[in-house]
Amino acid sequence: MSFNSFGHMFRVTTWGESHGPAIGCVVDGCPSRIPLSEADIQPFLDRRRPGQSRFTTQRQEADQVKILSGVFEGQTTGTPIALMIENTDQRSRDYGDIAARYRPGHADFTYDQKYGIRDYRGGGRSSARETAMRVAAGAVALKVLATLLGPAVRITGALVKMGQYSVDYARWDDAEIQNNPFFCPDAGVVSLWEEYLTSLRKAGSSIGGVVEVRAEGIPPGLGAPVYGKLDADLAAALMGINAVKGVEIGEGFAAANLRGEDNADPIRQEGGEVRFLSNHAGGILGGISTGQPIIARFAVKPTSSILVPVPSISSTGDNVEVITKGRHDPCVGIRAVPVGEAMMACVLADHLLRHRGQQG
Amino acid sequence: MSFNSFGHMFRVTTWGESHGPAIGCVVDGCPSRIPLSEADIQPFLDRRRPGQSRFTTQRQEADQVKILSGVFEGQTTGTPIALMIENTDQRSRDYGDIAARYRPGHADFTYDQKYGIRDYRGGGRSSARETAMRVAAGAVALKVLATLLGPAVRITGALVKMGQYSVDYARWDDAEIQNNPFFCPDAGVVSLWEEYLTSLRKAGSSIGGVVEVRAEGIPPGLGAPVYGKLDADLAAALMGINAVKGVEIGEGFAAANLRGEDNADPIRQEGGEVRFLSNHAGGILGGISTGQPIIARFAVKPTSSILVPVPSISSTGDNVEVITKGRHDPCVGIRAVPVGEAMMACVLADHLLRHRGQQG
Amino acid sequence: MSFNSFGHMFRVTTWGESHGPAIGCVVDGCPSRIPLSEADIQPFLDRRRPGQSRFTTQRQEADQVKILSGVFEGQTTGTPIALMIENTDQRSRDYGDIAARYRPGHADFTYDQKYGIRDYRGGGRSSARETAMRVAAGAVALKVLATLLGPAVRITGALVKMGQYSVDYARWDDAEIQNNPFFCPDAGVVSLWEEYLTSLRKAGSSIGGVVEVRAEGIPPGLGAPVYGKLDADLAAALMGINAVKGVEIGEGFAAANLRGEDNADPIRQEGGEVRFLSNHAGGILGGISTGQPIIARFAVKPTSSILVPVPSISSTGDNVEVITKGRHDPCVGIRAVPVGEAMMACVLADHLLRHRGQQG
Amino acid sequence: MSFNSFGHMFRVTTWGESHGPAIGCVVDGCPSRIPLSEADIQPFLDRRRPGQSRFTTQRQEADQVKILSGVFEGQTTGTPIALMIENTDQRSRDYGDIAARYRPGHADFTYDQKYGIRDYRGGGRSSARETAMRVAAGAVALKVLATLLGPAVRITGALVKMGQYSVDYARWDDAEIQNNPFFCPDAGVVSLWEEYLTSLRKAGSSIGGVVEVRAEGIPPGLGAPVYGKLDADLAAALMGINAVKGVEIGEGFAAANLRGEDNADPIRQEGGEVRFLSNHAGGILGGISTGQPIIARFAVKPTSSILVPVPSISSTGDNVEVITKGRHDPCVGIRAVPVGEAMMACVLADHLLRHRGQQG
Repeated sequence: MSFNSFGHMFRVTTWGESHGPAIGCVVDGCPSRIPLSEADIQPFLDRRRPGQSRFTTQRQEADQVKILSGVFEGQTTGTPIALMIENTDQRSRDYGDIAARYRPGHADFTYDQKYGIRDYRGGGRSSARETAMRVAAGAVALKVLATLLGPAVRITGALVKMGQYSVDYARWDDAEIQNNPFFCPDAGVVSLWEEYLTSLRKAGSSIGGVVEVRAEGIPPGLGAPVYGKLDADLAAALMGINAVKGVEIGEGFAAANLRGEDNADPIRQEGGEVRFLSNHAGGILGGISTGQPIIARFAVKPTSSILVPVPSISSTGDNVEVITKGRHDPCVGIRAVPVGEAMMACVLADHLLRHRGQQG
Repeated sequence: MSFNSFGHMFRVTTWGESHGPAIGCVVDGCPSRIPLSEADIQPFLDRRRPGQSRFTTQRQEADQVKILSGVFEGQTTGTPIALMIENTDQRSRDYGDIAARYRPGHADFTYDQKYGIRDYRGGGRSSARETAMRVAAGAVALKVLATLLGPAVRITGALVKMGQYSVDYARWDDAEIQNNPFFCPDAGVVSLWEEYLTSLRKAGSSIGGVVEVRAEGIPPGLGAPVYGKLDADLAAALMGINAVKGVEIGEGFAAANLRGEDNADPIRQEGGEVRFLSNHAGGILGGISTGQPIIARFAVKPTSSILVPVPSISSTGDNVEVITKGRHDPCVGIRAVPVGEAMMACVLADHLLRHRGQQG
Repeated sequence: MSFNSFGHMFRVTTWGESHGPAIGCVVDGCPSRIPLSEADIQPFLDRRRPGQSRFTTQRQEADQVKILSGVFEGQTTGTPIALMIENTDQRSRDYGDIAARYRPGHADFTYDQKYGIRDYRGGGRSSARETAMRVAAGAVALKVLATLLGPAVRITGALVKMGQYSVDYARWDDAEIQNNPFFCPDAGVVSLWEEYLTSLRKAGSSIGGVVEVRAEGIPPGLGAPVYGKLDADLAAALMGINAVKGVEIGEGFAAANLRGEDNADPIRQEGGEVRFLSNHAGGILGGISTGQPIIARFAVKPTSSILVPVPSISSTGDNVEVITKGRHDPCVGIRAVPVGEAMMACVLADHLLRHRGQQG
Repeated sequence: MSFNSFGHMFRVTTWGESHGPAIGCVVDGCPSRIPLSEADIQPFLDRRRPGQSRFTTQRQEADQVKILSGVFEGQTTGTPIALMIENTDQRSRDYGDIAARYRPGHADFTYDQKYGIRDYRGGGRSSARETAMRVAAGAVALKVLATLLGPAVRITGALVKMGQYSVDYARWDDAEIQNNPFFCPDAGVVSLWEEYLTSLRKAGSSIGGVVEVRAEGIPPGLGAPVYGKLDADLAAALMGINAVKGVEIGEGFAAANLRGEDNADPIRQEGGEVRFLSNHAGGILGGISTGQPIIARFAVKPTSSILVPVPSISSTGDNVEVITKGRHDPCVGIRAVPVGEAMMACVLADHLLRHRGQQG
């Protein structure tokens, strides 16, 4: 059962609400003798942290991670690694509005239907704040991958579409991703995005986006043919990120338009090296990695926390108009980039350990 | 761990290769006293069965399901339900080609990388034949849903896109779906699809497609906020179907283009009844069902089993050209329709039982 | 969730009732390229098979196992291994008595309380017949252990106590175990047991027993310190065998009587070899194997299927006296011996694969 | 996979070492709207806490539990409940001895074999300190049971044997259990135990014991017939407590001595009420609860932390004699009593939720 856990061999359990004393996670199944310290995790949290540009929520959190267990003298011990971040910016405010009204597009209504009780402060477990712990767990996963597979392992995420404005893949530059507030790999589109997002923010509106995540240096053989498929697990992991409404691998939905001969990836051998001539498959065939880069994309809806009024009901059933004030991201797709990277790292670490276990 | 199982409370484990004596599954966790007989399952298998039109593979299988356990005097007993289909059309043929060469776009290469051994006859576990057991399990899941939730439950799948030719949603007619060999809900596009697929078949080629699945009559409250999200589980279930490369819920990838106020689903109360004015969310908010229809779509790639030669390598590493003869579907998206329905039924049955268990 | 499965990496799911068409199991997670055929499994089933002496039930079953999937050209493929035994001796008889009355000491009453329906023919899932599939799965597990760990692996079970008559450990002889109908390792007690069991059988009564199972050749390091303890998993596996009421490891309950210095196992190094001078721990410390023989014992209650009348109630609540006629074992502990061996093999195979997966 | 978790619907994950900054656990799957505060948990921790009499270790820990998530306005929200206890008595000392030598009877040797690294300070994860979190989780489980089943639910543990000195069951008095430092239910044996344990402590030795745990007010129907057996899960839970070497249910090992007619529990109906006339079964038949009290016992070995020297080896392989100084319990069975109660509460809460989920 997995209400708040994911993974099997590399298993992550998260806990905490954005307005409680802390949030945290337990990483179970991490092999022993992986070098690990808080300094390995903090930079990833810093990338995800809000308040770094005017394009993300102004909520200020230091997001300082602490390792509470599972590490001894700089190395993992094989026992559970507990990570915790104390919540420091629990701004005291009046939640009367949110407590009494269901914000459209939010989980307020469904929480009440399911649990009959709701921690309305900041979205409870559905707060994007929970994703900080995924990023922390992803940093541990990346250390596992790098230690077991070597330095060729690299996971790269980027925002490839904001509203209708896509990047030009011909201009893709990994180095550019860190140069702008959007994790955008195409320098040519950055100023357009800046203007666009500024206008949306002023209008109190929001916009969706598409994120791409790529893993390099992953050996062939990870995954399984039927229900432990690597792509199925990636789909669950990425669809499970807040506000995600679609996931695709490799060619994805565009594969529906292709003929068999155009979608197949030819294989050649040269000097003993096996090489695929294209990567429509996104690095996965029959649920198992091919050794090519693993490529996934996911669509993030526009946040429903906007200043434009939307019809809704109160928790007592009255018709109301809801405006969601507060500190929000006009394009939540931006901050979903490091989260997507983290989820891919976790899924790959899990499958790597599973694969090792299955070997005769 | 789940190499060949899916679900938690309603748990399905499948086994069998297309060229062994039989395929089967075990459905564990089915509540007791659900009326069940082979006649409840067979019609679903008949819909998925190949060889019913010139647009699907000509492999002939009776696909006669047998219940081997878990049912007593016409009712489930709460113990595991074993289902089995004997393989009858194991046409004796020469597999020399497939045994020695990796078919591009197939799992041949990755199997050898993972397992070091490969049952090359008909694709082994990666054969679409395995999906017959998903359909059988889905039929049991549907009985569970109908028995526990009442007759309002209905799951409907359809092919909504073949290559570049989409259906017109304005002409959608559920009744039409059974009237054509494509599970197409739009009578206006059927003859176009017929011509198109006939020409592809003659060219020895294939094409991708998009399937939509809708569940009605599902109460609010199924799912969980973080890692037991209903949409994440649906994503895994649908991405796990052979040849699927993308999954979306509700507005899906199109949500990336929308502004917050356009993507939010307004809520109104009228006469004590809560009603959403739109369903961009696809019936799921924060991972939990809203009570609206649950809507998912998935993209199916064109089969790589085509008569057009594609460069590849032999299992000994030589460069070769591969043509895959045999009995194949020019658009595997067609037969994926009942499989998609079945997977949605299984996921919903699982979440319904989980939800009941979680209730105080 | 595990209603009918056990194990994680090496996962066994069983199905079937004693009076249905067949019983079976699916072994999932078995590594590829393990040599396996029906001839590897059948001898274990033959040992467990009833009707081999006058001291076990006279039910006659050929118990002929079939491998339905997961093996190709004599080797496992890494895909699920389905095993099936057809039920051949479903003697047609009148179950009126059992259908209407709760046999004391049986699960009749609890089944009705739980499920509201009960397959009363032969005990349904609680029939000892289900254990045939555990023995079959155990044979696969043993192949895994032998292939991965080498020929030093050996699992030996024996009946060490029948009623009040224990074996003399000083006379223990592994070879003797196959020489008598009791799996008794002490030739000196066999004739006493014969007389005793004959008199019990004539009286229509039954008696309990204690089984010991020992695994040799298991390396140190299997298990985990907290909830994946090797001894905890063994306890669950052995307590889960029909009629078992107690499990102990190494010194077991006798450890309660000992002082620390008498229970500790001294360690010595000699010529580079680490050696424990005793094995009170039963080969497990802190939930992890030490490399010494792993030793477990379990207590089997006397079967409640006896000719002596016992007060009970009918399913409609009337007070009745119940005599259970039919073909039963006066000491079910005897046939529990191969089942205990099988469960230990499954637990060890599971932990071996888990351990490999966890290694950095 | 479950290295550091147990349970399925009511799932507990613990983390932390005795010498790190804190220990904690995450309780996932707890139904919403269960009243819960730290005051519900603290009394159970206080019972388990060391240093309360001269018969337990003198380590002083406040063991003050904090609820970090999952509770809102005094009620559970259905989201994960994180509990934490900060370690306050991490006495700075020289661990040179323990770091370099394997204490016989401890997990030092097996840890090094498994992980190649070992947090030698206080036993790491194998420290009895970890059980504090089990007790905390058990307190939550008990609230779940009491809320869902009513006030008749009661779980009672007691030490029934210290070394060779058993309690007299005829003198059993639940109220007495809280009156002495041994959780002893028989006032008549307390002074004998006091003298005995005092002499052992003076000799620097230790002794084993047997604990009994009883659950009343549990309805029939919890459990499952094959691998989700209530007794099998109890066996795993109790065997998983530190130093436990044996577990039995109801009559337990004594059932091996009994004839069928003596072990069967007769059933009578009187005034519409079903009543068992005895409880050899310990409240479980065929893996499912009968509605009678559930009774389990477990054997705890004497701690190996003694002042009597025992031969062992250093981590570099040299032969040494080991004396384990420090603050230890001469009879760890005493403090295992509240841990046993907690584990039973957790298993029952898990099975209660599973049972509800399985119901049609």
